[in-house]
Amino acid sequence: MAIEIEQPSVGLSKVAVSETHGEDSPYFAGWKAYNEDPYDESSNPSGVIQMGLAENQVSFDLLEEYLEQHSEASSWGKGSPGFRENALFQDYHGLESFRQAMAGFMEQIRGGRAKFDPDRVVLTAGATAANELLTFILANPGDALLVPTPYYPGFDRDLRWRTGAKIVPIHCDISNNFQVTTQALEAAYEGAVAMNINVRGVLITNPSNPLGVTIQRSVLEEILDFSTRKNIHLVSDEIYSGSTFSSSEFISIAEILEARGYKDSERVHIVYSLSKDLGLPGFRVGTIYSYNDKVVTTARRMSSFTLISSQTQHLLASMLSNKKFTENYIKENRERLRKRYEMIIQGLRSAGIECLKGNAGLFCWMNLSPLLETPTREGEVALWKSILHEVKLNISPGSSCHCSEPGWFRVCFANMSEETLEVALKRIHNFMEQRKTASS
Amino acid sequence: MAIEIEQPSVGLSKVAVSETHGEDSPYFAGWKAYNEDPYDESSNPSGVIQMGLAENQVSFDLLEEYLEQHSEASSWGKGSPGFRENALFQDYHGLESFRQAMAGFMEQIRGGRAKFDPDRVVLTAGATAANELLTFILANPGDALLVPTPYYPGFDRDLRWRTGAKIVPIHCDISNNFQVTTQALEAAYEGAVAMNINVRGVLITNPSNPLGVTIQRSVLEEILDFSTRKNIHLVSDEIYSGSTFSSSEFISIAEILEARGYKDSERVHIVYSLSKDLGLPGFRVGTIYSYNDKVVTTARRMSSFTLISSQTQHLLASMLSNKKFTENYIKENRERLRKRYEMIIQGLRSAGIECLKGNAGLFCWMNLSPLLETPTREGEVALWKSILHEVKLNISPGSSCHCSEPGWFRVCFANMSEETLEVALKRIHNFMEQRKTASS
Repeated sequence: MAIEIEQPSVGLSKVAVSETHGEDSPYFAGWKAYNEDPYDESSNPSGVIQMGLAENQVSFDLLEEYLEQHSEASSWGKGSPGFRENALFQDYHGLESFRQAMAGFMEQIRGGRAKFDPDRVVLTAGATAANELLTFILANPGDALLVPTPYYPGFDRDLRWRTGAKIVPIHCDISNNFQVTTQALEAAYEGAVAMNINVRGVLITNPSNPLGVTIQRSVLEEILDFSTRKNIHLVSDEIYSGSTFSSSEFISIAEILEARGYKDSERVHIVYSLSKDLGLPGFRVGTIYSYNDKVVTTARRMSSFTLISSQTQHLLASMLSNKKFTENYIKENRERLRKRYEMIIQGLRSAGIECLKGNAGLFCWMNLSPLLETPTREGEVALWKSILHEVKLNISPGSSCHCSEPGWFRVCFANMSEETLEVALKRIHNFMEQRKTASS
Repeated sequence: MAIEIEQPSVGLSKVAVSETHGEDSPYFAGWKAYNEDPYDESSNPSGVIQMGLAENQVSFDLLEEYLEQHSEASSWGKGSPGFRENALFQDYHGLESFRQAMAGFMEQIRGGRAKFDPDRVVLTAGATAANELLTFILANPGDALLVPTPYYPGFDRDLRWRTGAKIVPIHCDISNNFQVTTQALEAAYEGAVAMNINVRGVLITNPSNPLGVTIQRSVLEEILDFSTRKNIHLVSDEIYSGSTFSSSEFISIAEILEARGYKDSERVHIVYSLSKDLGLPGFRVGTIYSYNDKVVTTARRMSSFTLISSQTQHLLASMLSNKKFTENYIKENRERLRKRYEMIIQGLRSAGIECLKGNAGLFCWMNLSPLLETPTREGEVALWKSILHEVKLNISPGSSCHCSEPGWFRVCFANMSEETLEVALKRIHNFMEQRKTASS
């Protein structure tokens, strides 16, 4: 072997070496623990059960049934020109048929109470890209978006890492079931101003991840009025809109704008995706729906960095334009999620654990604060560790969602079979029994 | 209608309002002119022929044949668990089978003269995203990459727009057939230093777009030695490597590293894509292959913003792991491109036009400098306009590629049928005849 000469290490950018990607948080650490020892009913019954993944598997059979009956959606057909046209299609506007189907699906989920114009649909490879892209368009490095806590841990990466933007938390707490108030909005804004930070917008998730609840109409009105008063943007991430257990309980910001005759709509941008409601995260389908012409144009240009495979657009255009299928899917999926939700809530309650009352999403927001040795972030992390390593459940601590109050955890329930969920509930039950015995 | 109250316009970021997206250049303006009046043999025979699009349609029948014979690659199979697993797969490592197939395909294209480790393959939604992602990792805002001219116009967007990085041109000219020299490298570097710009790397395209030529081994060695001397990165964009007319004429930077026992390889990163060599731009499949562990880890994390649909990974894993298919495709595609190249070169020569001697790519580099009224950028743009509006051919002026010498144009030949290419050549012939008549 030749003599090796040590080379001076070649440097990387500040973005590359920063920790803003967030992968060292407990949120991702729990995933690693799961990957190293994953539960399997027969081969590894004492393994870790993954309850930290907001994935929807409860309605997969409906998609499979559709594909069996409509093989034309995913195959090209013998000698068909479809493949050629499709493989070459790279226009950043996206397939027109798919944008139309997407706009139609968004209308259907909102019970027809808001209209969506296919020309305002900008396609991106997932909501992750959509949220980053909007941040690039709305905020300069150092500027901030106000985000209500608790929020999805991935936002720390999506909104901040490459954009250089900041997140200023709008602190919410259990006193009003974690709903946003005008006081909390004003306090966050004033706090940013005091630190000389330029606030460019508010970003809400509705229904909320991790809370699993929709935002009330009056609260949405307040947030929009606040944004207008401050002349800032409002991003509404509605990727769980189709996962609300009842059609009537979700109110989109689009409905508020429609009711106001689209007055002041140019500051509003909606993010949507098919990863949650349809359970297709691997297909990487996200969208930005903006009421601002300049944002639409710029986002489309920027989407060159994050286009959706035309093969996948082709498949989904076909699936989503079948109204009979989508109508049944949306209805059935809501019911199945509600059933799952009730199953976990009841199981937890019988173990002596209460959750925030939820009406949407693939998770519940569980209160374990009575179990904390100390009512601090450290106490919460210690409890999280014993649940991960002793009970062998990967759940997400509230602190990874920047929750201001220690002791809350997000527990996912739709990424597993009912049988596995029962095993998980049994483990929690036993854990609580042991603690009772130990403390008595 | 209610009284409309004018709202103060809500501001966007500097990135959003900057012109760095580059869509106002003649490169994209020509595309618009084509879109408004596209040539069609029967319905619009006097329309604009698109020769500004580097798209490979010459080997599409081979892909179609494969798909007809292997329907399992694109369909899911009745009751198969394939769809479920696939639709849920969102790990940013990508499908292992696809990364392996991709590494194998890259080896095959290089005639087995370099090895690729699937664990170093980072997947991105196209080379556009790959180049941007690398720039984010290598350069801070304000830092520069040195790029030989003429270069692909899209780099102005990909490397600069959202990253805030700069491109410092390495000026190349016809005196040595536009090859990079150490003097030109040093001059670009010194120029940047004089302007207090931090140079973080060199980015080359090999084979070159727009030149349509491969970089010689000795030149590659010089560029790598220069990068080592300055302790900067070297990005080698090799997206046309499989479009070199002869297997032996393309030398990858990977081969140079292999010959050097991978000494000093941590500064080298290769970009590849299936958009050109396989002609699948709509599927958005790009990759970064880095010899630097930290770049691999960071790029993978960053690829969350630009993942490839798992449906498409599934299809291509199957296609590219079929060695019999890939071997035949690569060989046949090279031959067909050479045939096309010879057809256009001969047609242009008989019209009295010379091109740089090419050996790769989907375009030739045409010298119209004798036709310029003034030997300036303005003269070139005037000639480009008359070719677009009178001859009805959309070709790309060298100035849009930042060429230092006026009068050169990139002409694409693989995105149309032979019949259409003949029509285009005939139009050029007539144009040249008219000019001769006019000037005699």
